Amino acid sequence: MSNARQFLYEEVAQTVTSMIHDGTLQVGSRAPSLRALGKQLAVSVATVMQAYEELEKNGLLKVRPQSGFYVQEPAKSVSTAPRWRSTTAAARKVLIGAHMNEVLDSARAPGVLNLSIANPGAELLPVKALNRSLKRVCVTHADEALDYAPIEGVLELRTAIARRSTHIDRPVAPESVLITTGATEALSLCLRAVARAGDIIVVESPAYFAVLKMIESLGMLALEIDTDPVEGLRPEALAAVIERESVAAVVSVGTFNNPTGTVVPREAREQIVQMLADKDSPLIEDDIYGELYLGQHKPLPYKAYDQSGQVMTCSGFSKTIAPGYRVGWIVADRYLAELKDLKLISSSATPTLTQLVMADFLADGRYDRHLTRLRRACRSQLQATRRAVHASFPTGTRISEPTGGYVLWIQLPRGMDANQLYRDAISENISITPGALFSSTGKFRNFLRLCAGQPFNEEIERGIRRLGELARGQRPA
Amino acid sequence: MSNARQFLYEEVAQTVTSMIHDGTLQVGSRAPSLRALGKQLAVSVATVMQAYEELEKNGLLKVRPQSGFYVQEPAKSVSTAPRWRSTTAAARKVLIGAHMNEVLDSARAPGVLNLSIANPGAELLPVKALNRSLKRVCVTHADEALDYAPIEGVLELRTAIARRSTHIDRPVAPESVLITTGATEALSLCLRAVARAGDIIVVESPAYFAVLKMIESLGMLALEIDTDPVEGLRPEALAAVIERESVAAVVSVGTFNNPTGTVVPREAREQIVQMLADKDSPLIEDDIYGELYLGQHKPLPYKAYDQSGQVMTCSGFSKTIAPGYRVGWIVADRYLAELKDLKLISSSATPTLTQLVMADFLADGRYDRHLTRLRRACRSQLQATRRAVHASFPTGTRISEPTGGYVLWIQLPRGMDANQLYRDAISENISITPGALFSSTGKFRNFLRLCAGQPFNEEIERGIRRLGELARGQRPA
Repeated sequence: MSNARQFLYEEVAQTVTSMIHDGTLQVGSRAPSLRALGKQLAVSVATVMQAYEELEKNGLLKVRPQSGFYVQEPAKSVSTAPRWRSTTAAARKVLIGAHMNEVLDSARAPGVLNLSIANPGAELLPVKALNRSLKRVCVTHADEALDYAPIEGVLELRTAIARRSTHIDRPVAPESVLITTGATEALSLCLRAVARAGDIIVVESPAYFAVLKMIESLGMLALEIDTDPVEGLRPEALAAVIERESVAAVVSVGTFNNPTGTVVPREAREQIVQMLADKDSPLIEDDIYGELYLGQHKPLPYKAYDQSGQVMTCSGFSKTIAPGYRVGWIVADRYLAELKDLKLISSSATPTLTQLVMADFLADGRYDRHLTRLRRACRSQLQATRRAVHASFPTGTRISEPTGGYVLWIQLPRGMDANQLYRDAISENISITPGALFSSTGKFRNFLRLCAGQPFNEEIERGIRRLGELARGQRPA
Repeated sequence: MSNARQFLYEEVAQTVTSMIHDGTLQVGSRAPSLRALGKQLAVSVATVMQAYEELEKNGLLKVRPQSGFYVQEPAKSVSTAPRWRSTTAAARKVLIGAHMNEVLDSARAPGVLNLSIANPGAELLPVKALNRSLKRVCVTHADEALDYAPIEGVLELRTAIARRSTHIDRPVAPESVLITTGATEALSLCLRAVARAGDIIVVESPAYFAVLKMIESLGMLALEIDTDPVEGLRPEALAAVIERESVAAVVSVGTFNNPTGTVVPREAREQIVQMLADKDSPLIEDDIYGELYLGQHKPLPYKAYDQSGQVMTCSGFSKTIAPGYRVGWIVADRYLAELKDLKLISSSATPTLTQLVMADFLADGRYDRHLTRLRRACRSQLQATRRAVHASFPTGTRISEPTGGYVLWIQLPRGMDANQLYRDAISENISITPGALFSSTGKFRNFLRLCAGQPFNEEIERGIRRLGELARGQRPA
C-alpha cells in the first residue's frame, strides 16, 4: 500500500473502530455502507472497501455475502495496546512533585520541541472567532466585564454549559454548574471539598500526574488501582478496594483517559456509580477530553448515571478552545455548597471577561463547528504520530489506540528506561513525559506519554525519529 | 460655612492630615505654603488659609508668626475614631462562614444598594483604555493570549509589578513576583504554603472577613490581636503573643486596613518584621489598598524592611482597575517554591489574556494617571459618606478617618446592634457589612463597615439617611 493509501485506510479504520468503542456500532450490527462512509470521510468507495477488507483481516468486521460488513467482537489478543500488571497498591503518600516540576519546566524552555504538554496547537484554535466575541463583549458588556462575576460564575455561561451537559433522562440545571479557573481548580476544589489530609483517594493507575501532585500537596494518600488497557477503571477492582478501605473519594478519567486513552464502558460506569452510591462515596470525574471523540458521539459521562448526586464532573475549555482562558467548571449536586465555599476562599470569582467571551462563543453553533474541525485534526495527528512511533521505536514497542483526545501512551520493551529517554531527549531539546510521573509506586518506568495536540509536521517527525533512535540506543537495564 | 466651602475645607484638611499620617509631613515641620497647596488642590489661597485656621483650632497645625503653619503632634484624644478594647483572645476555630455567605449573597441581589462590597464604582474604571489595550493585545499577542501562561505569570507583567514594588534600598526582581488569580488566591496560597490545619494564625482584630473564612475553611486557628484604632497592629501586642504561642504565620493589612483604615507606622513595621525574623515566622502582608493613598506617597509596605525574606506581600488590581480581571500577585522570596507548587495544583496558570492586558496598561504612564484620578474620587467619596453618616446616624456614632482606601469603620453607640441593623437594612434593599463578620470572638456587635467605592449620589445619600433612621430607631439592647 502506498503511504497516501495507508493514511486513508487508517482514517477509515479508526473511524469504524471509534464507532465500535463508543457504542455507535454494536457488536453484530451492520457497518456503515461503503458509499455513506466514503462520503462522510471524503474518500472513494474503493478505499472504504479496501479498509473494510483490512478490518476483516484484523477480525473487527466480518463480511456476510450479499449483505455487507458486520461488527465482530474485537479480538483483544491481537491488540498492540500497552499492557501492565493488574495489582492494586496500598494507599500511600505521593512523592512526584519535584520530578513533575522539572518535566513541566523543561518542556516550556525556548526552542524545545514540546511533545509533553497536552495542548491543542495554536493553529487549531479559533483565534479570529474568539477575538470577534471579545470585541462584541467589550461593547455589549463593557462594565460587566470589569466587575466581579458571581462566585458561581456568569449565568449565561452556566446556562450554556448546563445545556451541553444535559443527557437523556438527566437534565442539568444552570444551578448545578460552578465555573472555575480551569479544570485544575475544579479538580482541586472537589478533592478539598470531600477529603482532608490523611484521607485515602482512589485513583486510576496510571493517573494524570497533576491529580497525584494535588493529593501529595494536600497531604492525602493515593490508592492506585490498576486499570484495564482498553476499558479503564474496572468495577470489580474498585469493589474490592472500597470493601477493604475507607475511601474519601474516587477520581476517574472515564473518557479518553490521560494517559491511557481508555474509555470506561457504559455498563461499568453504571456499576461504579451505583457501587459508590451504596457506600455514599463521592466520585470526582475528570471529563476534560470528553468532547474530543473520534467516533460519532461523546461517550456519556458518569454523571449521566448519577441518581444520588455524588458525582462531581470536572471539565473545561483548555483542551478544545483556549488553554490560556482558564475557564473550567464543575457539574455537581450534593457537594455544591462546600465547593462554592472553597471557591470563595481559594480564588473568589473566576475572571469575568473570558467567561463572557465563552458564553458568546457558545451562543450559536460556532463551538460545535470548531469541535468538528478539531476532532478531524486530532484524528490525523494521532494517526501520524502513531505511524511515526511505529516506524522508529524499538521492535516490541506498544502504542495506545485512543478513540478520542490527543495523548498516546507508549510502552517501551521491558527493561528500557523512559526516565533515561526523557533525560537524553531533553538534552537534545525534545520533551516527553516519562511514565514514572503517572504513578507514585515506581511503576511505568518503561512507559512514556506523547502528546499529539500539535499539527504533525517535519519537525515533530524528526523529533519522534530521534526519540526512537535514543530508545533503540539504550542498553537493556 | 456654606456647604461648598465646607467641602473645600475638608479637602484641604484631609490632604494635610494624610500627609502627616503617611510621614510626608513630620511633626515640627512646616506645612505646605498656602499658594502651593491651593494650586495643587485647585482651590483659592483664602480657602487654604481658612482650612489651616480650622486645623489650628483642631490642634493639628500651629501658626508661628511671620513664619507659617507648622505640624503639631495630633491630639488623639479629640479623635472621633472608633475605639475598642485592647485584649487578645485565645487562638480559636473560626465560625463566620455561613454569615459571610449570607451577607455577600444578599448584597449581590438585584436592586440592592450595595454599601458592603469594597469595589470601585464602574464609572471610575478606565473601561475605554483597557479595551484599547485589549484590542492591541489581540493583534500583537493573538496566539499567546489563548495559550497557557507560565505558572509564575507573564514575564512582562511580573517585570512591571516588580518595578512598581521596588523601594529604596530594596529592589524587587521579576523572579520574586508570582501572578495569582486575584489577591484572594494570593492570600490563600500564602496561608497554605506556611501553615496546616490546627496551626495558629495571628490576625488583626478586626480582620478582613475573607481571611477569617480562609482560616476557618483550612481548619487553622485564628488568634486575634486587638489593633490600635489609629496605628493598627502594635508591635508590643504581637511580641507578647509570639513569646507565648507557637505561631505559624501573621497576617497584617498594614496599609489602609480593611475595615479600620489604619496605617501601621514605619517604626512599628520595622519592629514587627525584625521580631518575626528573629522567630523565623512568616508575615503575610495584604497590600491590596496600598495604591489608594490620599496623601503624597504610598506608605512603604512591610516588605520594604524585609531582610530575611519572610514577608510575602499580596496585592492585585481588583481595587484599582478591574475587579473582574482577577489579576493579583505575591511578592515573595523564601517561600516562592512552595507558593508556585501550590499555585500549580490549585488553579495552574493564571488566565493569560488579562495578564497581557494589564502588562500593556502598565507599560506607559496610564496606570499612574488613572490612580491619580481614582484617589481624588476616593477622597471625595469618603468625605461625602462620612458627612452623610455624621448627619444622620445616632449621636455618639464614631467614624474612622482613613487616609487611603475606601472603606469606613463605624462604631454605633454602645448597646446598639449592627446585626439587627444589617437585617433591617437588607429588608429595605440596603446592604452593609455588620462588624460581627470581622471577628470570630463575637466582638464588634455595634460596628459596621460602609464602602465608599461608588461615586456619591442621591441614592447613596438616601440609603445612608435611612440607615441612620434605622439605627436611631433601635431600642438599646
